[in-house]
Amino acid sequence: MLKGIRAMKRKIYVLRYGHRVGRDKRVTTHVALVTRAFGANGFILGDVVDESIYRTIAKVIDAWGGELHVEMGVNSFEYCENWKKQGGLIVHLTMYGLHVDEVIGDLRRDTRDLLIVVGAKKVPGFFYEIADYNVAIGHQPHSEIAALAVFLDKLFEGRELYLKFNNAKLEVIPSPRGKSVRRISAGN
Amino acid sequence: MLKGIRAMKRKIYVLRYGHRVGRDKRVTTHVALVTRAFGANGFILGDVVDESIYRTIAKVIDAWGGELHVEMGVNSFEYCENWKKQGGLIVHLTMYGLHVDEVIGDLRRDTRDLLIVVGAKKVPGFFYEIADYNVAIGHQPHSEIAALAVFLDKLFEGRELYLKFNNAKLEVIPSPRGKSVRRISAGN
Repeated sequence: MLKGIRAMKRKIYVLRYGHRVGRDKRVTTHVALVTRAFGANGFILGDVVDESIYRTIAKVIDAWGGELHVEMGVNSFEYCENWKKQGGLIVHLTMYGLHVDEVIGDLRRDTRDLLIVVGAKKVPGFFYEIADYNVAIGHQPHSEIAALAVFLDKLFEGRELYLKFNNAKLEVIPSPRGKSVRRISAGN
Repeated sequence: MLKGIRAMKRKIYVLRYGHRVGRDKRVTTHVALVTRAFGANGFILGDVVDESIYRTIAKVIDAWGGELHVEMGVNSFEYCENWKKQGGLIVHLTMYGLHVDEVIGDLRRDTRDLLIVVGAKKVPGFFYEIADYNVAIGHQPHSEIAALAVFLDKLFEGRELYLKFNNAKLEVIPSPRGKSVRRISAGN
């Protein structure tokens, strides 16, 4: 699990539904990297296994640290049903849902484990039904990557952009111009 | 140009650098859709033309409205140089830059036209140099789509998620469950 300045004890996982191997490789990789970088602690790829995505996540964690629970090939429907049975909350991100500003306060105060479902283009009615909240990051078509990032940024009120990741080998030194990276020796 | 509740008179364009036709189709399409949905008013694809992206943007605008200035195949370097010559400001989004919270206030107050550069993986030093601000949406690797969305959301302080788009044929009626879309008759 991701450590660092995490204030919340609850588990926040992202379930990616509808991934098509090959076609969606890059978009789903971005979803996984946003999951990690924006402070969620699990990435679940529903219904398929895609080794290329697993490898990219592993490489990023090896260099930049943190811990991320990753599962692939689980049955998405059963995963959601089990999540609910265990007392967890489900948010489904969709442009048809309620405006994020209407629900984000409730979602911040809620202490239950949170599963965030992000789908590819067409998503079965199942997710709209099982979700406790269908949440829209604006009601325009754009991107599930954008939706996830903005949702987590609002949930954590921007604090996620200050996260420190455990066991990082590399760390950026913020710079007005150019790239500055610090190599962190083992044990730090 | 995108109308609606836009308060700012300045032009905000997004320049996508490093697009590889085929390979980056979906990611660049997401960048373009975020550009529109999050209230910027121009999308520039540098150095290549990709008809498939153009078609997707056109379809979205036809159904969901708004206006977006789109150019493809311009020379990215010259485009940036001309932007500066005309008195515009350039922001380059990169995990190596300054934390967004440090600069967003200045960027909000600035009234100059704003060009936001988002690159693919490797970006030449040119952009780090010509940019007035190299800005990081966190210092972790994630996604240029996420970075652009969160940047615009912070720039507009969330107001962009209430934008109304001109000449839309469809409009979402926010719903706690399921999809509800209103068809808008011509002339409204």
